[in-house]
Amino acid sequence: MATSPVPQTFKVGLVQMRCSPDPAVNLARAVEQVRAAAARGAQIVCLPELFRSQYFCQTEDHANFDLAESIPGPSTEALAVAAREAKVVIVASLFERRAAGLYHNTAVTIDPEGQIAAKYRKMHIPDDPLYYEKFYFTPGDLGFSAVDTQVGRVGTLVCWDQWYPEGARLTALAGADVLFYPTAIGWHPSEKAEFGAAQSDAWRTIQRSHAIANGVYVVAVNRVGHEGAPGETASAVPTGGIEFWGGSFVCDPFGVVLAEASRTDEEILVVTCDRRHQETVRRHWPFLRDRRIDAYGAITRRFND
Amino acid sequence: MATSPVPQTFKVGLVQMRCSPDPAVNLARAVEQVRAAAARGAQIVCLPELFRSQYFCQTEDHANFDLAESIPGPSTEALAVAAREAKVVIVASLFERRAAGLYHNTAVTIDPEGQIAAKYRKMHIPDDPLYYEKFYFTPGDLGFSAVDTQVGRVGTLVCWDQWYPEGARLTALAGADVLFYPTAIGWHPSEKAEFGAAQSDAWRTIQRSHAIANGVYVVAVNRVGHEGAPGETASAVPTGGIEFWGGSFVCDPFGVVLAEASRTDEEILVVTCDRRHQETVRRHWPFLRDRRIDAYGAITRRFND
Repeated sequence: MATSPVPQTFKVGLVQMRCSPDPAVNLARAVEQVRAAAARGAQIVCLPELFRSQYFCQTEDHANFDLAESIPGPSTEALAVAAREAKVVIVASLFERRAAGLYHNTAVTIDPEGQIAAKYRKMHIPDDPLYYEKFYFTPGDLGFSAVDTQVGRVGTLVCWDQWYPEGARLTALAGADVLFYPTAIGWHPSEKAEFGAAQSDAWRTIQRSHAIANGVYVVAVNRVGHEGAPGETASAVPTGGIEFWGGSFVCDPFGVVLAEASRTDEEILVVTCDRRHQETVRRHWPFLRDRRIDAYGAITRRFND
Repeated sequence: MATSPVPQTFKVGLVQMRCSPDPAVNLARAVEQVRAAAARGAQIVCLPELFRSQYFCQTEDHANFDLAESIPGPSTEALAVAAREAKVVIVASLFERRAAGLYHNTAVTIDPEGQIAAKYRKMHIPDDPLYYEKFYFTPGDLGFSAVDTQVGRVGTLVCWDQWYPEGARLTALAGADVLFYPTAIGWHPSEKAEFGAAQSDAWRTIQRSHAIANGVYVVAVNRVGHEGAPGETASAVPTGGIEFWGGSFVCDPFGVVLAEASRTDEEILVVTCDRRHQETVRRHWPFLRDRRIDAYGAITRRFND
């Protein structure tokens, strides 16, 4: 694919979706929405983090490992069909079973021929109340990378990675012109009134900063809707579980938000990116020119104490 | 100074000033405004980048090296008196003459005893139309650091550094709880209508992101006012020179802007920072916990091609 000329402009599709308790339903709906995005012109479509299920990391339950699958596996096979039919690249976040007792939070990039072009295993794993990911996911061992696709060179990271400038930088240095962040982030309902606005704004701000620092497009794709803790019934004013805050967005290489989805509803965004604009931004704000690579070595230390 | 207990709360002072063509006037006014900030309770006061003169880097003129001075030198002596009298820490950005033909863009931290507690030489040097800094300043050779003061441990960076996540990260890893960015940034009048809002917003966004990524307070102190290119007369609608955009601000460790100065006028901000709030933010958003220091080594490469 790298032999084809890279297009000056290309369209990215974002599928902001609600996830049901039934993985089969979620896969069918994801495929349907990938097709809908492609019908609107998207050439690469990104799904939210772990879209095949509700966000099971709200509890530590060994039974949830049943949700994992191999890569390639059932999800990538179904998505490969969709990619071929719609002639799109798909970025899909999956719960990967690598071996018994060894699981990852993995994003695959499937090309329009239905092949897995790239695999990224989430490098930074959170562990916070209702986000017990360290119980489920071994931190990635594939590092940060980028891959050539029909829209050019792209890089994928996943959710918690978005808080780390190092991940964005290394993916951009690998040549990515666009960073995709499949995400599952939301408010604890009990905190939302006091902290909610600052939390979602910080989430947007840190990702916009990756665009600015690196001169790349950034595409963040979140899920939406409230998912209650097991045993809890959803109510009009939920007090438990997580209210996923949607707000999927695309920003340009200077951090300007080009499109942003609803906080509450499912939505497909299709946004045009322009490599000439990226070239202009990087010429005028040539941050890559002046990096002090001789002085960054201590980045690999935990703390300089 | 490190032996004194670190206060839970402390007040930072920001002196957003206009710079005249007369260095003596600028020094006198800086001292006056440091005193005014201290009178309002500031315990550490930051001046804008290269406040002693107008922004001479708009041209490449060998005569401008006459503006440089040794450190310690006349400016640090005058500021030391002010620091002692007002019992404040002063962060001052100076044009340092280190040797004949060897100059730096340097920030000094002067303690309330009037001693130079720390010296930082700007690591990232820009070179863009009207910002011809590579002509004047040798890139810093002191690395990124932090120093204990009466308000706790602080780190200083300078202007163009603010676009580099690596500088902020390394300064935070050195233990800084607050990052100071003396700055001289503005609009090219001919670009302002089309790009001005995006430029100043990107400037604010990238610095807020350093606060978020590192759980630190960030203090950005800019100059204000139009400074024309030599030989050009300032007019009501300037077409040349630089319109420094002010907008000095403080944000908290989650990127929330606590105070922001005018875009057009001189202004002193005095803002309370709270180390307990920083502790809370870092506990709830423990990004330092999960850094993949085993996987960041390629940060020291120019580009991974």
